[in-house]
Amino acid sequence: MSAKPIAGPEIERLIQLLARLPGLGPRSARRAALHLIKKKEQLLVPLATAAAEAADKVRVCSTCGNVDTADPCSVCTDPRRDPGTIIVVEDVSDLWALERAGAMSARYHVLGGTLSPLDGVGPEDLNIAALVDRVVSVANSENAVKEVIIAVNATVEGQTTAHYLADQLADTGVKVSRLAHGVPVGGELDYLDEGTLAAALQRRSDF
Amino acid sequence: MSAKPIAGPEIERLIQLLARLPGLGPRSARRAALHLIKKKEQLLVPLATAAAEAADKVRVCSTCGNVDTADPCSVCTDPRRDPGTIIVVEDVSDLWALERAGAMSARYHVLGGTLSPLDGVGPEDLNIAALVDRVVSVANSENAVKEVIIAVNATVEGQTTAHYLADQLADTGVKVSRLAHGVPVGGELDYLDEGTLAAALQRRSDF
Repeated sequence: MSAKPIAGPEIERLIQLLARLPGLGPRSARRAALHLIKKKEQLLVPLATAAAEAADKVRVCSTCGNVDTADPCSVCTDPRRDPGTIIVVEDVSDLWALERAGAMSARYHVLGGTLSPLDGVGPEDLNIAALVDRVVSVANSENAVKEVIIAVNATVEGQTTAHYLADQLADTGVKVSRLAHGVPVGGELDYLDEGTLAAALQRRSDF
Repeated sequence: MSAKPIAGPEIERLIQLLARLPGLGPRSARRAALHLIKKKEQLLVPLATAAAEAADKVRVCSTCGNVDTADPCSVCTDPRRDPGTIIVVEDVSDLWALERAGAMSARYHVLGGTLSPLDGVGPEDLNIAALVDRVVSVANSENAVKEVIIAVNATVEGQTTAHYLADQLADTGVKVSRLAHGVPVGGELDYLDEGTLAAALQRRSDF
């Protein structure tokens, strides 16, 4: 690889920034930059505008930790959502994934990560105290939270965090639940790990 | 999939535009957008600026068809490059790939595609006449072109285009060559197609 840049500095800068996106390496960033340049009016100019507008408008919701262009976010202010159910997720991407599934019309709470003592992430680094406050503050109102669904990843860190959360919420009296383990829909048994298969057998349901 | 947008319109617009980049689908575009939003100052704001600057500055080189922020491009104006050799490529991405290889310090000519009668792409749709003009115009000067290397893809369309180009250049008297066929460096014979193996055997060199 020669170190000299192939194109002008503005193009090189665009390539460098695109290469920092997840899912794009140096080679695909170059391809993406070239695609943007070739479709300048349809893609590059709109992207510049959209990125500037998003940067200007984006807010972190002070209630739940979601990102949106309004604070409180559109999920927190949606009157059709059940205020009695809060789904706790690690990250905004998990919130988006659950919204795509469209299975529940609940509110959310974004932790911003998981407890990880090895990486120095303790309870005070996550959005946990705000969750307990949120549950306690509405305890005797008509918007009282009835159930907190802990929807963290099924990793060791996720499960540690889930146990800590359940402990913290124990005194509030709300029901605390978590996602089911089992065979993914469309999944083939042969490709699943032993833990998942054991959980699916153990928690089998009547046919 | 619910049709309703998950986040504000500015964020949705950013996701939609990112999803149109090669290598990013709808899901990875959402992940990329979220990454940009989370790193607003380090990534989203610089990307907006870089995209706007690139859109403002980018030019198609009127000599060779390369994209750059100058016209003629930095390759065409580089005095250290041999003006006697022109490497003909299909696309700017091929020019970049050959520059990364750094094997020759020549000039380029970007065709902008390949002949494809089925898709209605004829010689007049490609940057072919300009190549012949370019060769003819300097014929008796000190910058006379001595060799045109046809570096198109080893596809049917590429080879058809190569033959057409060789015909067009026949009267100019310049040497016309093309890339070698053979075993890719690091390639395993077992995974190569018959055509490549036959070519590698036929064009074998002395050890």
